[in-house]
Amino acid sequence: MTEDAFLAGLRKRLAPAHRRLVLGIGDDAAVFRPQPGRDLVFTTDMMHEDRHFLRGYPADAVGWKALARGLSDIAAMGARPEFTLLSLALGAWAKEKWVHRFYDGFLALAAAHGLPLAGGDLARAAHTSLDVVVAGSLPRGAAFRRDGARPGHRIYVSGLLGGGSLGLRQPRNRSARLRHLRPDPRVALGLALRKRALPTAMLDLSDGLSTDLRRLLLASGVTAHLDGEIPRFPGATEDDALHGGDDYELLFTVRADARVPASLAGLPLTWIGTIHAGNAGLCLRHGHPLPPRGWDHFVEHRTP
Amino acid sequence: MTEDAFLAGLRKRLAPAHRRLVLGIGDDAAVFRPQPGRDLVFTTDMMHEDRHFLRGYPADAVGWKALARGLSDIAAMGARPEFTLLSLALGAWAKEKWVHRFYDGFLALAAAHGLPLAGGDLARAAHTSLDVVVAGSLPRGAAFRRDGARPGHRIYVSGLLGGGSLGLRQPRNRSARLRHLRPDPRVALGLALRKRALPTAMLDLSDGLSTDLRRLLLASGVTAHLDGEIPRFPGATEDDALHGGDDYELLFTVRADARVPASLAGLPLTWIGTIHAGNAGLCLRHGHPLPPRGWDHFVEHRTP
Repeated sequence: MTEDAFLAGLRKRLAPAHRRLVLGIGDDAAVFRPQPGRDLVFTTDMMHEDRHFLRGYPADAVGWKALARGLSDIAAMGARPEFTLLSLALGAWAKEKWVHRFYDGFLALAAAHGLPLAGGDLARAAHTSLDVVVAGSLPRGAAFRRDGARPGHRIYVSGLLGGGSLGLRQPRNRSARLRHLRPDPRVALGLALRKRALPTAMLDLSDGLSTDLRRLLLASGVTAHLDGEIPRFPGATEDDALHGGDDYELLFTVRADARVPASLAGLPLTWIGTIHAGNAGLCLRHGHPLPPRGWDHFVEHRTP
Repeated sequence: MTEDAFLAGLRKRLAPAHRRLVLGIGDDAAVFRPQPGRDLVFTTDMMHEDRHFLRGYPADAVGWKALARGLSDIAAMGARPEFTLLSLALGAWAKEKWVHRFYDGFLALAAAHGLPLAGGDLARAAHTSLDVVVAGSLPRGAAFRRDGARPGHRIYVSGLLGGGSLGLRQPRNRSARLRHLRPDPRVALGLALRKRALPTAMLDLSDGLSTDLRRLLLASGVTAHLDGEIPRFPGATEDDALHGGDDYELLFTVRADARVPASLAGLPLTWIGTIHAGNAGLCLRHGHPLPPRGWDHFVEHRTP
C-alpha cells in the first residue's frame, strides 16, 4: 500500500465537499472559505524521530525544518502565511536544552516570515515526533491547485534541484548540508507567481521531482514529456535532481503563451518539459518512462 | 518540568500578539480574525500509542476519541466546528484493517457534527501516533476564554464527572467504559451557552477537574472555593470526579446574578463553587487546598 494509493482509497470514503471547504484532501493544503473575506489555506506535516530526523541532528535544524515543510506547502498554494500551530511529543532523551534549541530554529524561521506560533500541544512520549500546522490566506479562489495542467502547458521548476539529497549523502558538503537541514521555503516566489497569475498548477518539491510531478500529472489527468535539462545543485547527480527529496522548490505549469521571466524572487525559473494528453500520471524522460522513485511516506525508509 | 510550567516559559519567548491573531498559546484554542468575517478558532491534540491508547483498544474508539478531544476544545470556546485535519503515523502493527476501523470511528463522529475531514498527513513510523486539528467559527469577539473569571462569579460544571476515570479503572462497567472510549463532546452545550452569553470564562474538562480548574484560576488570577457537591457519574468516587480525566464536560464561570438553567442541551448544570480574590490558581475544597492531581501531559503516565 503506497501513500498515494491509500489516500485515493480514503478520499472515496469522505463526505461530499462541504459548503465552505473549497479544496479538501489531496493537494498541498486545504482551502477554507469564510463567508466574505479571503480564502484560508491549511497544511499539516508530521516529523518522526529516526524517519525524518535523528537524535544527533542539531535541534535547531529540526525545528527549522519542521516549519519549513509547512511553509513550503503554503508557498505552493501562492498564499501568505498567517500563523502556525505546533504539536510536539518529546522522547525521554529530549531534555530541556534540546527543546529550547528546537524552538530556536522553529521561531527563527517563523520570525523571518512574520509568522506567530498560535498554539499547539505538548507531551512526553516514547519517541520524539511533531506535527506542524501552517495557515495562510489569499484572495478568494486564487489558490494554485495541482489539477490545472492541460496539454500544451509548459513545466517549470524554481531554483536548483538535488541539493537536499546531496546534503544527506555528503554531510561534509556544507552548502548541500545546509540545504538539507535548513531548507528555505519559497514563500516570496509563491506570492510573486500569484501576483502574475502565471501557474495553471503548482506544488512544492518535498518528496522528489519524479514523485511530486507524478502527483500533479495524476491530479490533472495528463502526461509529461520531461526533455529539458534539470537545473542541478552544484555537485548533485541527475539522480539527486530527479528523485531526491527535501529540495522545497516550486514545480508549476504555465500556458504555452505565458511570459515566464528567467528569474523571480531571486530564483531561476527553468522550463524542463511540456504537458501532453495521454496516460494520467505518466512521465516520459527522453522517451522513456520515468518511475516515481522519490520519497513515499507510506513505505519504510530509514534516515541514514 | 510540568506542562503548565513549560508552556509559561515558552509563552515568554513568543513574539507579541499578531494583528489578526486574537488569542494565542494557553487557551483551549487559538483565535484568528480574518478581515471582515467570523472569528476562526483552532485546536490541535496529539494521541500516542501506550500513552493515550493501547493496541488492544477498539480502533474505531481510538479514531472517535482522537476527534472528540479536539471537538471538546472547540465546544469550550463556544464555537461551531467547521473542519478537521488529521495527521496519522502508523506503527508496523497497524494494518489496513485497523486503519479502516480507525477511520470508521473518526468519520462517524465527524458525520455526527457535519464536519468534513479537510486533509492531513499520513506516514509509517516506529509507533502509532496522531494529531488532530479542529477549526471552528463564531461571531467576532465571542470566544469564551479562560481568563474572565472574577471574584463573586459562580463556578458551574456540566454533566456528571468521574465517568472517564471509572471506565479506565473498571473496563467491565459498560456505561463508564463507553464514557472513557467514546466521549461525547459538548458542542451543542457550548453553542447554547454562547447564545445566552452566560460564561465569563470556560474550558473543557479533559485532564481532570482539579487540574483544569487550576488553569482557569491561573489565567484569571483568582482563587476558587469549591464547596458544592460535585455531580458524579454513577459508581464514580469523589477522587474520580475531582481528579479523573477524559470527562469532556464543560467547566465555566458566570456572574453572581446570572440565571443559569438547571439543564441545557440535555445536560445538567451544577453550581459547584465560587470565585474569590486571592492567590492565583489556588482552589480550596471545604477550606483545604485541593492539589491539581489530574493528568499532566508533561509527566510520565502510563495507560493501564
